[in-house]
Amino acid sequence: MKNKPENVENYLNTFSSKFDRNLVDLIPKSQKISSKLFDAMHYVIKVGGKRLRPIFLMEIAKILGVEKTYSFRTAASIEFIHCYSLVHDDLPAMDNDDLRRGSPTCHRQYDDATAILVGDAFQSLAFEVLADKKTHPDPGIRCSLINELAKSSGSNGMVGGQMLDLEAEKKKLDLDQILQLQKLKTGELFRFSCLASCILSEKLDEIRIFEDFASKLGLAFQIKDDLLDVEGDEKKIGKKTKKDSDRGKETLISLLGKDNAKKKSEDLIFKAIKLLERYGEKAKKLIELTDFIISRNK
Amino acid sequence: MKNKPENVENYLNTFSSKFDRNLVDLIPKSQKISSKLFDAMHYVIKVGGKRLRPIFLMEIAKILGVEKTYSFRTAASIEFIHCYSLVHDDLPAMDNDDLRRGSPTCHRQYDDATAILVGDAFQSLAFEVLADKKTHPDPGIRCSLINELAKSSGSNGMVGGQMLDLEAEKKKLDLDQILQLQKLKTGELFRFSCLASCILSEKLDEIRIFEDFASKLGLAFQIKDDLLDVEGDEKKIGKKTKKDSDRGKETLISLLGKDNAKKKSEDLIFKAIKLLERYGEKAKKLIELTDFIISRNK
Repeated sequence: MKNKPENVENYLNTFSSKFDRNLVDLIPKSQKISSKLFDAMHYVIKVGGKRLRPIFLMEIAKILGVEKTYSFRTAASIEFIHCYSLVHDDLPAMDNDDLRRGSPTCHRQYDDATAILVGDAFQSLAFEVLADKKTHPDPGIRCSLINELAKSSGSNGMVGGQMLDLEAEKKKLDLDQILQLQKLKTGELFRFSCLASCILSEKLDEIRIFEDFASKLGLAFQIKDDLLDVEGDEKKIGKKTKKDSDRGKETLISLLGKDNAKKKSEDLIFKAIKLLERYGEKAKKLIELTDFIISRNK
Repeated sequence: MKNKPENVENYLNTFSSKFDRNLVDLIPKSQKISSKLFDAMHYVIKVGGKRLRPIFLMEIAKILGVEKTYSFRTAASIEFIHCYSLVHDDLPAMDNDDLRRGSPTCHRQYDDATAILVGDAFQSLAFEVLADKKTHPDPGIRCSLINELAKSSGSNGMVGGQMLDLEAEKKKLDLDQILQLQKLKTGELFRFSCLASCILSEKLDEIRIFEDFASKLGLAFQIKDDLLDVEGDEKKIGKKTKKDSDRGKETLISLLGKDNAKKKSEDLIFKAIKLLERYGEKAKKLIELTDFIISRNK
């Protein structure tokens, strides 16, 4: 029997409140004469986020028997990368967004220079957290995590995807190109979130399954995001909607059509959940969260 | 007997040409549909740099008996961090510089968004290179390097220093604050360049000496940079000079006076060289390079 989206949302909210309290503890204290940079870093975390990548990582960690401190710190490093990318993407030179989750974006609350530096500092912090022995006693495992995170977020990963996205404003992309763009821009970090616990538990045989799961989850997430951009409630989402269509950009919705896109996302989630059934009762929460990716309304 | 600055400059030029050829090999090939990001990354490396951090790292590595592949890859990662910081610092929202080494800065050659992403990608690349087992077979050593580099370049290091530097345009700093600012903005990365080889060779007893050396070297470098900004030849330096005084910013020169500042930098280099004498003939090149820091004219 399916759990109601509201219940999953409550579960996610409880998770993210607790996660955020621990997340701020990882931001270094300012040892110096200025606190503006640190204030701005705290502001970005306070504005919050759905913390989807962390919750998927930590739920998979539970299934694979990873110690909570390890999965939390790895999830935190991914969220720091995600935060840095949002702060930079929001800049006037990029997407030029004034609002995120109903609050002024970092460069609107502070200024562009501060937002650039906040993003840079979050990226360093992600790797600092992973390299610390508190993340896992085995340095070989820490290096694997760092290597994977650097690749997922770098030029052939998230940053490369953002570059394609900027270029997409100037030329019409076809479906294959949009799929490629999304695979890089959001898919790569989802991929790492889903396989990190396989590395942490040294259950490398599971990587194939969770990579497959992540690719389905990431694409369904993106389709749902595009659907919300077209028909979602601006107030609930807390940022400007219809941005892509206003800019004449092709999206998964414009290329597939709304009904087909919706059907596609449902099919992807159905198949993603199928992959989890082998883990039995232990995967219950993860299955609910997977289903929530397309049932959410923000 | 002192070697002439021209000879040291030739040595440095030979080093940097070879270093740059190897450096570009570490930039990933574009696996995707856009090459702009990768073109811009190559452009930044092609515009070049003095590669001072790499040469100091690799000369200290020779003294401590570190294998060349290891010291090269560590030096490359530091240079990628240095490159990302220059690309971001040059942006209109930050220092707004049009020229670097006589060529258009990254955002002038491409655009602001590309420059933001190029910087972001260089930062990920630095950590990707360090995490790879080609950098050192011992993952514990790789994690130490990553941890140190992340700290030196993060919010309580280089990025924190850049934040202070931006704020210095709005308020007058005193000498202690300027010293603090420089220690973070340029000193921390110099520090890591000088101690990385101690980590690579597991000669942790030498860290204290090379930290001391680095703090003297870093400050002398900064004083010389400020002197060149005041009295240097814009054509030789390849970027706009007198920027700080034009903006009414305090510098080590404005606070100490030109003569005192010069004397201070000479004294620092004298003491830095003293620290190297224990390594005898092996330190000959490193001593020449240390002296060059204040005898250079660009």
